[in-house]
Formats: sequence, C-alpha cells, structure tokens
Amino acid sequence: MAKLQAPSGFRDFLPDAQRKRNELIRRIRAVYESFGYEPMETPCMENLDVFLGKGGGENEKLMYRILKRGASLERALESKDELADLAMRFDLTVPLARYYATHRGELPAVFKRYQIGPVWRAERPQHGRFREFVQCDIDVLGSTSMAVEADVILTVATALADLGFSGLTVRLNSRPLLRVLCEKSNVPKEAIDRYIILLDKIDKQPWDELNSDMLALGCQQSELDWFKGLYDYVKESKEYDPRELFKEIGAKVGDKGNPYVAQIQEVLELTPPLPSGKLVFDPFLARGMDYYTGPIFEVAAEGVPFSLAGGGRFDELIGKLGGQPTPACGFSIGFERVYTLMDERNMFAGATGAADALVVVPDAAGRAEALNLGAELRSAGLRIDVYPGEAKAVKQYELAERKGIPFAVQAGPEAGKVTLRDLKTRKNEILARAGAAAWLKGKA
Amino acid sequence: MAKLQAPSGFRDFLPDAQRKRNELIRRIRAVYESFGYEPMETPCMENLDVFLGKGGGENEKLMYRILKRGASLERALESKDELADLAMRFDLTVPLARYYATHRGELPAVFKRYQIGPVWRAERPQHGRFREFVQCDIDVLGSTSMAVEADVILTVATALADLGFSGLTVRLNSRPLLRVLCEKSNVPKEAIDRYIILLDKIDKQPWDELNSDMLALGCQQSELDWFKGLYDYVKESKEYDPRELFKEIGAKVGDKGNPYVAQIQEVLELTPPLPSGKLVFDPFLARGMDYYTGPIFEVAAEGVPFSLAGGGRFDELIGKLGGQPTPACGFSIGFERVYTLMDERNMFAGATGAADALVVVPDAAGRAEALNLGAELRSAGLRIDVYPGEAKAVKQYELAERKGIPFAVQAGPEAGKVTLRDLKTRKNEILARAGAAAWLKGKA
Repeated sequence: MAKLQAPSGFRDFLPDAQRKRNELIRRIRAVYESFGYEPMETPCMENLDVFLGKGGGENEKLMYRILKRGASLERALESKDELADLAMRFDLTVPLARYYATHRGELPAVFKRYQIGPVWRAERPQHGRFREFVQCDIDVLGSTSMAVEADVILTVATALADLGFSGLTVRLNSRPLLRVLCEKSNVPKEAIDRYIILLDKIDKQPWDELNSDMLALGCQQSELDWFKGLYDYVKESKEYDPRELFKEIGAKVGDKGNPYVAQIQEVLELTPPLPSGKLVFDPFLARGMDYYTGPIFEVAAEGVPFSLAGGGRFDELIGKLGGQPTPACGFSIGFERVYTLMDERNMFAGATGAADALVVVPDAAGRAEALNLGAELRSAGLRIDVYPGEAKAVKQYELAERKGIPFAVQAGPEAGKVTLRDLKTRKNEILARAGAAAWLKGKA
Repeated sequence: MAKLQAPSGFRDFLPDAQRKRNELIRRIRAVYESFGYEPMETPCMENLDVFLGKGGGENEKLMYRILKRGASLERALESKDELADLAMRFDLTVPLARYYATHRGELPAVFKRYQIGPVWRAERPQHGRFREFVQCDIDVLGSTSMAVEADVILTVATALADLGFSGLTVRLNSRPLLRVLCEKSNVPKEAIDRYIILLDKIDKQPWDELNSDMLALGCQQSELDWFKGLYDYVKESKEYDPRELFKEIGAKVGDKGNPYVAQIQEVLELTPPLPSGKLVFDPFLARGMDYYTGPIFEVAAEGVPFSLAGGGRFDELIGKLGGQPTPACGFSIGFERVYTLMDERNMFAGATGAADALVVVPDAAGRAEALNLGAELRSAGLRIDVYPGEAKAVKQYELAERKGIPFAVQAGPEAGKVTLRDLKTRKNEILARAGAAAWLKGKA
C-alpha cells in the first residue's frame, strides 16, 4: 500500500479528540434545539448544476467534483463534455436553498433549522485550513421580522457562553447601511464591493495601507478622514455613547440610510440580555460574503483574535438558488476554530475517558466471570470496559490508563468480593461485590 | 435551476425524520460507549490507492471517485491516466485499516473502536437501497481471544434490546468450520466460495433450487441430503439439543474442524446472558463477505424477515490493507434497516417535537417581551421556541402544531401573568409568570 496517510489536507481523529468533537457537537445541538431550531439533513453531494454559479463565489472554484461513471463517462470523454455529474457541498447554505425549493410545502411557514455537518473545499493545505471541516449553521427562512435577528443572535451567544466563552461581543452592522454610507462618502459606485473588502480588514491591517488602497479606489481623503475619526472614537472610547454614533451616522446617510439605522436599533432593542457579553453596533463590520442584504453580525470573545461566529440576513439568496423569493437570516459558529481554541485552553473539562472502569481479567478461566461482572456494573448505569483477552495485570492497567479509565475492577479475591484499584494512587480496596457500582459512582 | 431534487438515490431528511435518526445514533452510541468502545473518525474520502484491490469486492466497483483538478487533471486527460485521485469510502472497514496503519503507535494495544457515519456506493437506485447511507460499526483490533467475540455480541445485542427489539436471536457460526465442513462433504475445493454464497440463501430460497445449483457445482446428492437433514433438524425442532449438533458436526469435520467447534463452544460459554434473546450455534449461517477467518454472527429479531446486524472475525484483512498483521473482530448494526423498521413500528416513542412550548407574539410591540419570556423559560431548562416575527395567533398555533410543539405561552393578560394554551385541548390557563416553567415541566 503506497500512501498510508489520510489524504493531504484531511484529518484523522484519535479517540480523545473525537470524544471532544462529539461533546462539542452535542452541546451546540442542545442549545440550538432549546431555541426550537429543527435538525434536517441534505446529502453530502448534490447534482453539479445546483452549485454552478449560485453565489458560492470563491468556494465554487474549490468544489470537489464526482467523476461520472461507465457509459456516461465515456460519452463525456468523447464529446469533451463535463466529466462530473455530482459535487461535494462546499457549504450548508446552497444545499439548504435546494432543499427548501424541494420541500417548501412540507415545512413550517417560518422554518427554523440547524445543520451540523462536514463540507469539503479543495483549499491549499496550510495551518488551520482543512479540506474537510464541520460547519454548524442556524437559519430562519420565511420571516422579514428583526425578531429573527434577535433570535439567532441570542441563540449563538447562548451556545458560546454555554461552551465556556466569556466576555462575548456580538458586533452588529447592516450591509445596506454600509453601502449607503459608502455612497454618501463618495466611494465610486463600482468600487463599493472592493471598498467593503478593504474595510473588513480595518482591525487587522495598518490604517496607512488601507487608506492608500482606498484612495486608489477613487475615495476622497476628507471622507476617509471622517471615517477614520469615527473609527477611532468607537475603538478608543470603549464606553462610547451609541446615541452619538447613531446621530453621526444618521446625519451622514440621511433619508436613504435611516431605515437601516432603524433596523439596527430595532435589533438592539429586541435582543434580550446576552448570557455572557454584549451586543453592540459597529459601523465598521463588513463580513466577507457579498450575498447579505440586511443586518450582519460577528461574535468575538475576550482574548481571541478572530471571530467565533458570523452571519446576517440574506433575503435574496434563497430565491436566486431555489426559485421562490424567501427572506432568510442565518448565523454560523466556526466549529473548527472553536474546537481548536477549546482544546488549547482545556475547556473540555467535562470530557471523560473511554469508560468509568476496566474489568481486569486475571486469566483465561476468569474471562466469563469478568464479562458477567462487566454486564452487572453496566446495568447499574456505569460505562464498563472489559479487558479484551488475557494479559498480565500491569498490561491491563496500562490499557486502562491509555484509554483514560480511572479505575480497575477484578472479581475476588474470594466469592462475593471485588477488588477495586484506583489507577492514579495505585491503591486497592476490597469490597462486597454488591457495593462495587455504588463505590464507582461515588468516585465519578 | 434545472434539478431541484436531491440526486437520484440520495435522500433529504425532514426535521421529524432527522430527529429520529439523531435519537437512534445517540442511543446506539451510548451503548457502544458503555462498553468502552472509543469514537474515532477518518475522512469521508481517501487516496484512491487505499481502496483499489483491498477486499472491497463488489463495493469497489460502486465507488464514487473524485475528479482530479487543474493541471493534474489536464495531465491525466492527455496521458489517458486515472482521472481521479481520491474516492469516497464505501465502508468503514477499509478506512479503519488505513487509519490503524497510520496511528497504530498512538492507539491502545487492544483497540476497541466504534464509528457511526455515512458511506457512499453508486448502487442502482431501488427500494431500500441508498447511495448514501449510515453504517455503525464496532471493531476490536489486536486480540485473538474469543472474549472479544463475546464482547461484541453482548454489545450489539444490548444496543438492539435498548432500542426496543425483543426476542433477539444471535446466530453464531465459524467460517473456517464451514469450509472444513464443505471439504469433508466433498464440495469441490474451487467451488467452496460459490457454495457458501448459495448456503447464505438457505432461509430465503426453496431447497430444490439450491439443491440443483449445488449439484451443478459438483456436490454429491448424498452429502446434500445429510446437510438438509441437519438443517431440518435445527429449524424444525426449535428446542434442539446443541450437544447433539456439536456431536454430529464434530464427527463430520474430525480433527481438522474440531478447533473451530471448540471456538464456537468457547464463545457460547463466555457470552453473558443477552438482555433480550439468545445466542445459538447455527451451522448454516454463511455471511456474504469473504474476508472472515473465524466466528461469524448475525442478529435476527422476532417477526423481522432480515438480519439487523452482522459481523465476524477477520484476522487477515487489516494486515492485507494496512501492512502489519493484526487480529480483528467486528460487528455492525444495519442502521438504515433498523431506522426504517423502528419508524414503521412507532418505536421512537421518546422522540419529541421541536420544543416544549412556543412563545406567542401578540403584536410588534410584544416582540421584545416574548423574546425575554423565552429566555426566562429556557433558563429553567425548557426548550422554548419564540414565534419568529408577528402573525395572527391562529397562524402561530399552526406553526407550533406543525413543529410538534404541544403548548403555547403568551405574556399577559396583565403584568406578572402568562397565558398557557394546551394546543391539543385548545384550553387556556392563566398563571403567575413565575409558575409557568414548573407548569410546563409538569406536563412534559
């Protein structure tokens, strides 16, 4: 066998990592479900057409395509036609649009859904970029109400707080407001998209560089100065008065922009207090994707230099992808970032070893009794591994430690007794067999 | 958009189905983990080499291949070379072998693992056959002990009993015993594999047909009669004496077969009582895959015409696939069969609707209070949906019923009160707001 590695850019997960990933999915799912978001699933691959020219942007270029088969492949090769008929999903949003078009009639009038699953992109392998990675999205389809924004924001902030992140800041802006602001600041119309992309870097890149890039787009220095002044005001005065900001921005955008300012104010008013952190208006938040049509948001946590979640309203995308116009708003937790961060910071305190105890098998004659003892303890609600085979006790203890199992149990030394060993302290205790489950539960 | 369906042979899952599937995965996983099986994951795709000629048999032909990209695709087209470099996994066993070869040094000496995930096969679409389906396997790598067989059998039987299946019969046979039996019955050596495939149909196909097919393989009528006699004895006398069977088979297979008879007896002795059903020796069990090297098993449930799980020992496969010889034994629950059956039989009694209650939004002015009421009830541990927007009360009740939500809650009619509505009886009750959570919990 030539290559005994996972393909380049793909990952295997060892048990310890997988337990943490499962735990993370379980906890995010529990919060999503506690807000009434419903699970659903689409296939991992779709007909190729579904993905072509459908708002995937750069991601469309990174799509993995599935080779046609048999006669249909031969025909395609002869006629130099498309060689693929299916493709792997590169996000969960395009498949959602297709799903919604297929099943609209079977779904609630306002559809709150979540999906947690892998997506695939042929990214150039580099640190922290994977070709197969998990996304976990919530979306609400079918409502234009700003209560939806409040709902998705509270849901995601609750999930992150539940995972142990503190000092969350949910930054809120509006994509159409940002466009009006650009227009009113005399950014040339055709340069607005590129301007927004530059703006997205304002927290990461020196202002001088951005300023000259923006000038090169045809922006006016006086307008850039106004913008930079506002930025400094917001960033430097941590306790700035949002009313000042709304006044300043409101004056700049005038009648055309005021409905969007009102939307932002509505979201701020509607959203209940976040469990750990705050929701703030940030007129500099831009977001990368160009399909947003309303409020946009991102979450940052204290001491974390990148955002943990992002989303916004996209009232046009579903119609474009699936046929019938449908308002929509979504928020997505960056699963891989969150996982890596929680792992680095030991935030998986709840994750346990492979079992609560290992039943040690003294010799071949003791195997049946060991398996029975395992079944007995399990029926008391414990997670019990039984050593699979026979080996020296020290080998068996080693296996337990390798699997993060804290205790070893062995039938004996006499009938009706068990020996319990704490594998950390290496101390044994002899108990009545009937008391073993309670003893182990007491230690958990 | 041309095709607004999932690709042919693939499935979308609506929320109700997805909730059940998640519930099924959660319950199987809990049992697997209660036996000390550890989770792990491999990518959904592997380098194509990993799959080629590696024991996948028919499945290898059904593999989905991933088209090469860019310059590497162009080179392949020019030189008429392989157009794919990656392929989707068609089972979880071949990737396990690759994973084990990569990570052996990081894993416990005896590795008990489980994996629940999708696999892909380009099957001809037909009733009950899907191109993307979930497998859920347990495997133990690194031990030749028959205690492993006992462990996987008890684990799978416990999982199925936990799901609500009763009257389970785990049938146990030995692949090498079956081969010796064939030899001793004068089945021509080169026809043994085909004979075993025919034997696999003994419960489904009329004996006359099998008999003539077996004769065509070069079998002797007298030997077939002996076999059929034994079959009738086992099937007709439900309470047959297994000792009789062992005596009869033991005499037939002689010294060459007796070690395998002893293995079977060992598994029968070692396995603790199953939670719901029994473990029996069935000399006619054959299993489809040809990589088995020891005991094989299948589970049937009362009144179910197909097996719910199957497995066996495959001591040579891992070495063949991954380099280093490693004894292995696995058991796999037929997830899709079990799911379909449980759904048809209403065995998902525990699966609930999308939330415990829906907070009704009386009008735009009541939105913030509704969102706050939702947060309040949620912090008491309830799953609370808030109507996403504004609508007539009847529309909101409709949405709740559609999502399987049994109760509606609304702030008011006066401060400090809430109105709780049972959506089944359509009766309202007015309570102090502070008592709402307890009331809802009492109804759950």
